[in-house]
Amino acid sequence: MKLNQLTYGIVGLGIMGGSFAKAIRQNILCQNGSTGKVYACNRSTACLDMAMKEGVADKVFTSDNVSKMLPECDVVFVCLYPHATLDFLREHRDEFKSGAVVTDISGVKGIFEKQLPSILRPDVDFIIGHPMAGGEKEGYANSKASFFVEHNYILCPIESNKEDNLEMMRSLVTAMGFTRITETTCDIHDYKIGFTSQLCHVIACALVDSAEDEEITAFGGGSFEDLTRIAMINAPLWSELFISNKEKLCEHIKQFRAYLDAFDNSIKAEDSEQLQALLNLSREKRLKMGSIRTSVKK
Amino acid sequence: MKLNQLTYGIVGLGIMGGSFAKAIRQNILCQNGSTGKVYACNRSTACLDMAMKEGVADKVFTSDNVSKMLPECDVVFVCLYPHATLDFLREHRDEFKSGAVVTDISGVKGIFEKQLPSILRPDVDFIIGHPMAGGEKEGYANSKASFFVEHNYILCPIESNKEDNLEMMRSLVTAMGFTRITETTCDIHDYKIGFTSQLCHVIACALVDSAEDEEITAFGGGSFEDLTRIAMINAPLWSELFISNKEKLCEHIKQFRAYLDAFDNSIKAEDSEQLQALLNLSREKRLKMGSIRTSVKK
Repeated sequence: MKLNQLTYGIVGLGIMGGSFAKAIRQNILCQNGSTGKVYACNRSTACLDMAMKEGVADKVFTSDNVSKMLPECDVVFVCLYPHATLDFLREHRDEFKSGAVVTDISGVKGIFEKQLPSILRPDVDFIIGHPMAGGEKEGYANSKASFFVEHNYILCPIESNKEDNLEMMRSLVTAMGFTRITETTCDIHDYKIGFTSQLCHVIACALVDSAEDEEITAFGGGSFEDLTRIAMINAPLWSELFISNKEKLCEHIKQFRAYLDAFDNSIKAEDSEQLQALLNLSREKRLKMGSIRTSVKK
Repeated sequence: MKLNQLTYGIVGLGIMGGSFAKAIRQNILCQNGSTGKVYACNRSTACLDMAMKEGVADKVFTSDNVSKMLPECDVVFVCLYPHATLDFLREHRDEFKSGAVVTDISGVKGIFEKQLPSILRPDVDFIIGHPMAGGEKEGYANSKASFFVEHNYILCPIESNKEDNLEMMRSLVTAMGFTRITETTCDIHDYKIGFTSQLCHVIACALVDSAEDEEITAFGGGSFEDLTRIAMINAPLWSELFISNKEKLCEHIKQFRAYLDAFDNSIKAEDSEQLQALLNLSREKRLKMGSIRTSVKK
């Protein structure tokens, strides 16, 4: 079936779920001849009313009647916190449509690889995915169809995934605006994300926490602002992500601290040569790393 | 005398000096009735040729004949590295115009407060200043008249400064686009800048250095990029800044590391309550800190 003929179910209509719904509506279901639908489910109803009013959702459901939504959906995006996603899959195991593709947005994948086999039915294909987009803004009100444009998407295929369904997911996220799809294992995902995302959030928050006063922006030239934008953090979500990935994250913290100590020692010793070697290394490495949008701008 | 009737001398025509020259030309000397001049001096000549060709400079000089420029300048911006600035002042002590205002752009001020009294003539007013603008781009080619728009400027008045000259500097930098001028001591400047600027640069560079590979941007969602933009660093300059401010900077590194350890420990202990307390603290503090442009956007 074509993407514009599928029924999509969004579980959790926050900034991520809302952006999926809007991107599907705008990029896929606005085509001529589209017969697909967007169904949305959320615990609270304010965002559901908004999604109906804006024409983003065709039908909406709450936690009480999501059992009526799931059997109709060809593709389900579960946009909840990591453990809540697993709980949802467990609780609603028998309600998914046979042959459905179900996917998640969780920033940590090891727990999925471990728990999925005991949760899912063989006739439901769960594709582990991670849309690499976010920000300090939350909620449906901040969601938008263009939220994912030029962002990275990570897929962690597992043995049971059907190649047709993986190909459908690739087309679907590409149609939503994602520009670089990387396929890897859950283990590598968690290690890399532990560095590029989780370690960065730990650093940003530790930096803000260590500030002695709040009257420092008069002394800012942009660096502090850049480093701490992500410190306006959702504490329950990130606490769960950090703890769910603790071995890998703490390994990254350890490696980072070793370099922090190297800087500290060479500054204290006034060892300009060693200090410049550390700084030149970071300049050269950073330049080689390019941009998250490297593949687009080339 | 009015700002548009003064002769300005720029020593060092890089991104900062070039942006001063262009902002003066565009914002101050383009007014009707302007009789002021911009003179520029640089060791290498390519940027000088460009500044003449673009109509930014009225006359240019090299290190060999800067002695001819200084006696004509009412206001001199010395846009060199910190120690090179002090060396320049020492070497050219007798060449400044009597009554001239001389200022700098150095990111560290303690060494100025300490050394200036033995360097400067009583009839030359040195105003210690710090334009809080920068970036990974360097050189005159990247300079622009709007470089300072909506940025912070810090003045560290010393006892010998004349109030008229301080007032002239405030008007001058405001005309260049700076929107928030903070006046403080050299000691407070170095402590605050040690945090908002130098610590941030140390962290960004240590983070990049600790990366195990360069193929990580496919796993980036923006955080890593935000935190490491400033890691594309000028090693000789920043090595000098770090070492010149080592006591204060290392104190900040120590405080930051204490919070990093607190995060590390609560993640390892899976202490979600403690972790969320640390995260909530950073969210609340960061929101209160506002923007470097707070005073503009209010």
